[in-house]
Amino acid sequence: MRLPYGAVVSIDGARLLDRLAELAQIGAIEGTQGCSRLAFSDADREGRDLVVTWMRDLGLTVTVDTVGNVVASTGGDGATGAVMTGSHIDTVGTGGRYDGNLGVLAGLEVIEATLAAGIELQRPLAVAFFSNEEGSRYPPDMMGSLAYVGGMSVESVLKVEGADGTIVGEELERIGYRGSAPCPGAIPHAYVELHIEQGPVLDRAGLQIGVVEGVQGISWTELVLTGQSNHAGTTPMALRRDPMAVAAEVAVAARDIALELGGSQVATVGSLTLHPNLVNVVPANATMTIDLRNTDEKTLQLAENQLRIRTAELAEVEGVDVTSRALARFEPVEFDGRVVNQIEQLATKSGLSMRRMPSGAGHDAQMLSRICPTAMIFVPSVDGVSHNPAEHTEEQDLIAGAQLLADTLLALTEVTW
Amino acid sequence: MRLPYGAVVSIDGARLLDRLAELAQIGAIEGTQGCSRLAFSDADREGRDLVVTWMRDLGLTVTVDTVGNVVASTGGDGATGAVMTGSHIDTVGTGGRYDGNLGVLAGLEVIEATLAAGIELQRPLAVAFFSNEEGSRYPPDMMGSLAYVGGMSVESVLKVEGADGTIVGEELERIGYRGSAPCPGAIPHAYVELHIEQGPVLDRAGLQIGVVEGVQGISWTELVLTGQSNHAGTTPMALRRDPMAVAAEVAVAARDIALELGGSQVATVGSLTLHPNLVNVVPANATMTIDLRNTDEKTLQLAENQLRIRTAELAEVEGVDVTSRALARFEPVEFDGRVVNQIEQLATKSGLSMRRMPSGAGHDAQMLSRICPTAMIFVPSVDGVSHNPAEHTEEQDLIAGAQLLADTLLALTEVTW
Repeated sequence: MRLPYGAVVSIDGARLLDRLAELAQIGAIEGTQGCSRLAFSDADREGRDLVVTWMRDLGLTVTVDTVGNVVASTGGDGATGAVMTGSHIDTVGTGGRYDGNLGVLAGLEVIEATLAAGIELQRPLAVAFFSNEEGSRYPPDMMGSLAYVGGMSVESVLKVEGADGTIVGEELERIGYRGSAPCPGAIPHAYVELHIEQGPVLDRAGLQIGVVEGVQGISWTELVLTGQSNHAGTTPMALRRDPMAVAAEVAVAARDIALELGGSQVATVGSLTLHPNLVNVVPANATMTIDLRNTDEKTLQLAENQLRIRTAELAEVEGVDVTSRALARFEPVEFDGRVVNQIEQLATKSGLSMRRMPSGAGHDAQMLSRICPTAMIFVPSVDGVSHNPAEHTEEQDLIAGAQLLADTLLALTEVTW
Repeated sequence: MRLPYGAVVSIDGARLLDRLAELAQIGAIEGTQGCSRLAFSDADREGRDLVVTWMRDLGLTVTVDTVGNVVASTGGDGATGAVMTGSHIDTVGTGGRYDGNLGVLAGLEVIEATLAAGIELQRPLAVAFFSNEEGSRYPPDMMGSLAYVGGMSVESVLKVEGADGTIVGEELERIGYRGSAPCPGAIPHAYVELHIEQGPVLDRAGLQIGVVEGVQGISWTELVLTGQSNHAGTTPMALRRDPMAVAAEVAVAARDIALELGGSQVATVGSLTLHPNLVNVVPANATMTIDLRNTDEKTLQLAENQLRIRTAELAEVEGVDVTSRALARFEPVEFDGRVVNQIEQLATKSGLSMRRMPSGAGHDAQMLSRICPTAMIFVPSVDGVSHNPAEHTEEQDLIAGAQLLADTLLALTEVTW
């Protein structure tokens, strides 16, 4: 490794902020700063078109692969051997304007500033946005980057059915982003992703930068609880087979397990749907999701097992049937120590306040880490709010993060492993 | 009271079953025996049109009042001083074919058989179907009969907004059932309603008839729990304001309270809606309903108070805001002992197996009991299933109940209070 690199490129913070604001107009949620651009929706297409236009305006080589991942590179040979950055531009149903978008547009800014500075690069720079990172419309999340690294076949991706009954392949076709570039994609030299923290740690500590050492493991389970629909007034409690009663106990159990295990363990019931969902009818069935995360794989497995056992017990007592489906499962990820050190050194050099930390959210970087040295840079989320239109990061933090990304990417063009 | 009455009228069981089957075709849920005819929907209109045609074919005086209640009478002066029967023909979203419909069509059959027998009545017979008994689309349930007895103003009824944003007055107008007959309506001499039990008591005991002494009190509450939407992976458990966590605890608490109070106390969470309802987002808010019922008003109040206190405690711990709205509240009702005795004596005379019992469900009869001597007759529900397309009552039980209704109504035409 040759460190530090020599070239100094100053990013144009105002240009980055302008692009963030312009992209946020697409799918804007009225009366808020937030966005709704679910994967492969019309709004996603509009967002893609805008970013691709910016990529082409810089004269970059732009490819769209067979699952809709878009890669723009300064090199003629795409991302092969490039120092790559990127993230995603899809959002949750009621999302913010920085989640994902910051990483893509900061990457674009780094490239534009570098090209403007006329620096001769030893390796190409590339910026990507990966399909359906959020997984809000189609499981699993990080779908595009998972396919990019060969972790899910293109065939499987295209067949995925969404909660709304639509099919990924058909929707990709419809929005014009079922491309022809090969997937799995080219192997980069390194990958660094800038992202908002989406949690309260940096904001509470008053720090500017998080140097991300790894990602929590993620376990998503969908439970369908089937009981006996009945009149709410005439069925004695002891004779009920009430799936909502089980769903409530399971939700309480999931929380208790997380609190008992402590540490980084979290548990969330974000989705619960009853049928027929009427005030005076014991529901026939309940469909719920449970999101478990931990930085430690063994503890995550413990949480899964405890919840599985408890769910079976609760369902049996109530006479309710359970079918369980894994919507997503990713082990905790450890990023490349050399890249982590590189980021930390450059941040120190720039006088930024920082800490090393794990990511509580899943990110495309964890997929890329399977094929090349990878790490991430976090900037603070005010009050830790994310996946919410109120998501906010201060302008100076956005710009500081993007400048650190520039410094890091350029340094990595000069590094050999 | 002159008992027993002399006239004997045999109802035509086959004709009753045919009408039940024909009415069940309207709003039929494919592949089931069930029906979906939500109040004031197109299906409700079609059902109303069919039953009104049958009423007119018998030469009855048919009136439609200002909230859509329909009354058909053998007398020229409507229901004034009549021995009245009836029920409702609206259903829950996924309902059965007998709930309500049996009472209306059995009443029609009693009148047809009586007219055919050429019996000279000392008082008119009347059969009614009341608007929106179920309350599934617009609160409160038993809306039409409540207005009929003066318990809710016509103005208030017409203004009610449904969960789908529609307004009762506009929908009534749309389906052509905003009539001109006065509401509150005429005061009958007596009211007896035949209904399926909708619970498992008669079926489990192998009895043919329930002589209904009264109705459980009903308390419907809607809670809106507002927390802080956030990323499910990055927000430590201790920093969450999760409305689903509170909703789950409240559902568990409601059940625990019902089990601790015992007796006839039941508690049901039939409806729960999360927003945004995504696997990886801590919900911003949860809207849930709680249905509490008891035959004893004091115990019902105790259940309400315990739940209110527990909800406030749970919400405070989680930092979640609660707004509570009463969707419906009816005290327990005691039916008229003279009418209850009359039914019991006639059932005994006919050799029917039976028991006295309370109703766990609300019925239009509890509203009519405010203005005239009232009671009800129950027939068994197989496995206690109701508010479900699988709702079923054996044909011989339907017919036995209708014949007992005929005997009772005719006896009451000869009774003076």
